[in-house]
Amino acid sequence: MKHLLSIADLSREEILGVLDTAASMHEVQHRDVKKLPTLRGRTIINFFFEDSTRTRSSFEIAGKWLSADTINLTGKGTSVSKGESLRDTVMTVDAMGVDMLIVRHPASGAPAQIADWVDCSVVNAGDGTHEHPSQALLDAYTMRRALGDLEGRHVAIVGDLTHSRVLRSNLLCLRALGAHVTLVAPPTLMPSGIGAWAAVDGFDTSYDLDAVLPTVDAVMMLRVQRERMSGGYFPTAKEYAVTYGLTARRLGLLQDHAVICHPGPMNRGLEISADAADAARSLVLDQVSAGVAVRMSILYHLLAGEGSDS
Amino acid sequence: MKHLLSIADLSREEILGVLDTAASMHEVQHRDVKKLPTLRGRTIINFFFEDSTRTRSSFEIAGKWLSADTINLTGKGTSVSKGESLRDTVMTVDAMGVDMLIVRHPASGAPAQIADWVDCSVVNAGDGTHEHPSQALLDAYTMRRALGDLEGRHVAIVGDLTHSRVLRSNLLCLRALGAHVTLVAPPTLMPSGIGAWAAVDGFDTSYDLDAVLPTVDAVMMLRVQRERMSGGYFPTAKEYAVTYGLTARRLGLLQDHAVICHPGPMNRGLEISADAADAARSLVLDQVSAGVAVRMSILYHLLAGEGSDS
Amino acid sequence: MKHLLSIADLSREEILGVLDTAASMHEVQHRDVKKLPTLRGRTIINFFFEDSTRTRSSFEIAGKWLSADTINLTGKGTSVSKGESLRDTVMTVDAMGVDMLIVRHPASGAPAQIADWVDCSVVNAGDGTHEHPSQALLDAYTMRRALGDLEGRHVAIVGDLTHSRVLRSNLLCLRALGAHVTLVAPPTLMPSGIGAWAAVDGFDTSYDLDAVLPTVDAVMMLRVQRERMSGGYFPTAKEYAVTYGLTARRLGLLQDHAVICHPGPMNRGLEISADAADAARSLVLDQVSAGVAVRMSILYHLLAGEGSDS
Repeated sequence: MKHLLSIADLSREEILGVLDTAASMHEVQHRDVKKLPTLRGRTIINFFFEDSTRTRSSFEIAGKWLSADTINLTGKGTSVSKGESLRDTVMTVDAMGVDMLIVRHPASGAPAQIADWVDCSVVNAGDGTHEHPSQALLDAYTMRRALGDLEGRHVAIVGDLTHSRVLRSNLLCLRALGAHVTLVAPPTLMPSGIGAWAAVDGFDTSYDLDAVLPTVDAVMMLRVQRERMSGGYFPTAKEYAVTYGLTARRLGLLQDHAVICHPGPMNRGLEISADAADAARSLVLDQVSAGVAVRMSILYHLLAGEGSDS
Repeated sequence: MKHLLSIADLSREEILGVLDTAASMHEVQHRDVKKLPTLRGRTIINFFFEDSTRTRSSFEIAGKWLSADTINLTGKGTSVSKGESLRDTVMTVDAMGVDMLIVRHPASGAPAQIADWVDCSVVNAGDGTHEHPSQALLDAYTMRRALGDLEGRHVAIVGDLTHSRVLRSNLLCLRALGAHVTLVAPPTLMPSGIGAWAAVDGFDTSYDLDAVLPTVDAVMMLRVQRERMSGGYFPTAKEYAVTYGLTARRLGLLQDHAVICHPGPMNRGLEISADAADAARSLVLDQVSAGVAVRMSILYHLLAGEGSDS
Repeated sequence: MKHLLSIADLSREEILGVLDTAASMHEVQHRDVKKLPTLRGRTIINFFFEDSTRTRSSFEIAGKWLSADTINLTGKGTSVSKGESLRDTVMTVDAMGVDMLIVRHPASGAPAQIADWVDCSVVNAGDGTHEHPSQALLDAYTMRRALGDLEGRHVAIVGDLTHSRVLRSNLLCLRALGAHVTLVAPPTLMPSGIGAWAAVDGFDTSYDLDAVLPTVDAVMMLRVQRERMSGGYFPTAKEYAVTYGLTARRLGLLQDHAVICHPGPMNRGLEISADAADAARSLVLDQVSAGVAVRMSILYHLLAGEGSDS
């Protein structure tokens, strides 16, 4: 593994390798002195062309705990705004001698394109509506901690499927780990051509959340962007919450062992009620905590080769 | 001590403990190699919801000199702007496994609220018009270095008392250390209900700066925000400077040993003249220098428990 | 050397000293573990009053690889926006006990002014249309790696000479190293009084790029800011490219050993064609790579005195 661009590039064994390393990284996270010498003298650039708190700081913490040098660059205030091409900008940063670019970009495919241009490793930290592979890995890690092996487990992914990069990465990751996946959304937020896609990748779809919930081991609620409401995707926030939100009433439909995930940031009262978000079975904060461990594991797998300090 | 939210939470002994540790930290600051291993492997987040140069960089330097990992987050570009609640945002950062949030926030009370939500330590780096405890501690440190024990000393605090979070923290800190305090301001900038407050906390008030200056050991000039002028708090900058500014003429009213403080940033020519700001008795830059040492001490007292590296 | 404000302050021997140290720093850059303990415990502030990706991150990487603590401050969000004077702002940062300010500022002369105010070292990272000395040193380093000793070599600097701070620094540096320099630009972008300047500093000028190219060992293309087109400096981008751009056709005019430089960011298709930018003889990315090594050398020469760790 040199890059992490898409879950599609990873074998089941590679996914499990990342998750296993994450488990040992997770222990570091609970120590008082959170510091491993593994990536000392390696330089990691967080290059974010979109705003992000959690992903950016999660990667930054992961890098620092592995003793890497971490530097933040944003799309704003860079030479891109002076008319320089994206290619020249990233080749410039690469030429400085850095070891990794962690890239978030509004254009689907930008990180893969960048990986073609540069010598250093590239991690896709979310590109357009395409993929967000580190999120899928941390989601899988979190569900495995709660449920054990995901083989044969049933996971529902619910909400704004059309605009979600988390969806695609999670679908690929869960399928690789043997889980059965059902996508639930209103017709207006179901991706076009979903039928053909479902046939190829082997998942189900449904418009009826109440029918699906009693059968799942985990339900993952996706963020609805409020600005979509004016786009006519659904009439009102209230109607969305009643029809597709994980309301207090719907909690009662879940099996006792079933868990709740949300990649955040949450719209409380819209796709997820406060009762669901704060329930004992909610793994929302576990996902955040796992995020650092999984990203440490990703950095380790991509950078800690022969030349490392460890 | 787990949090530093308000000077009101500190006993006289705790205040003196912070100031004494700061004195040894101050020596580190004058070494060529400014680095102690004390907080190695601890992670400190500067979470600033308002702009700040000096407080933010002072805390960042303090953390780095103690070998902590430091990360900056701003309110802008965070998930708060995507509709996430403040509670979810700070619980997310906390769940990553950080050790401390240093919070500046425009809402009075926000850091105390945050401390209720998270597991990590919280430092109030200025909240609305409420408190700015690290500023008060560095002011006390600076005055003690210049004047010795503050017991029985007389300190005037002058200027925009209504909008100042520095005022409240300084008043509590100076009173705890036994100083006598007189607040001086035009009637429009004197907090409402000041009489009752003065009776409880034991300080004096005055509208007459010329009458107070000859009796003080230290005078602290507070910043006047120019935008207040349009609010009708005072007619013109010139009139304010003549009536309540520390002008060249007023320097002559001070006792020989009396010192001048200002928390910065200064409006030269408004609340403080260049003659006063640059006088030998001005401690303005000493306050800045002490700021790093006092903040190192605060980080040390809150984080360097049993599990530390030192 | 305490400050690096202008190439004019450096003797030929000092320039060669910086370039020689840069050569050994360049080796570090190609190691897996890029870390020297030289500046451990030193604190460097990147204080940028203008946007910059490459210069800021190049200095930040250089500082981190030498184990210094590095902190970024921008003009935005600082107390300058609250009405504080530049002098008070930089004296405040200096009073915290930092070792170096690396300053980019839109006003020519600002870094030299700042150096008068503070105790710490100051590096000019670009001031208005005045100088950009670290750029000139990295350009000289890159050309020497490609061409050997620059004594008697011929370098053309082409393009927007009026608004370029790179021009002045490069001219001084190349002249100190014994190179012959020809400036090429349309009359509207040739600095006024260039004749008198040329007589004093000993360089040539020309309006005819085709006539100059066959005689040069290196050609340095300067960025044209597109916003200048509306200023009437030249009629259209296309006409500029045809008349003063390094087009594919003009590559054929160069001697076999001649090299191409550009300080970046490049306007491909304007002052430099893709053929030229990506040619084997193009040193554009070598300049970027050298930038980190040369800046490490600058930090070393200014900060690694008697008190250092090394």
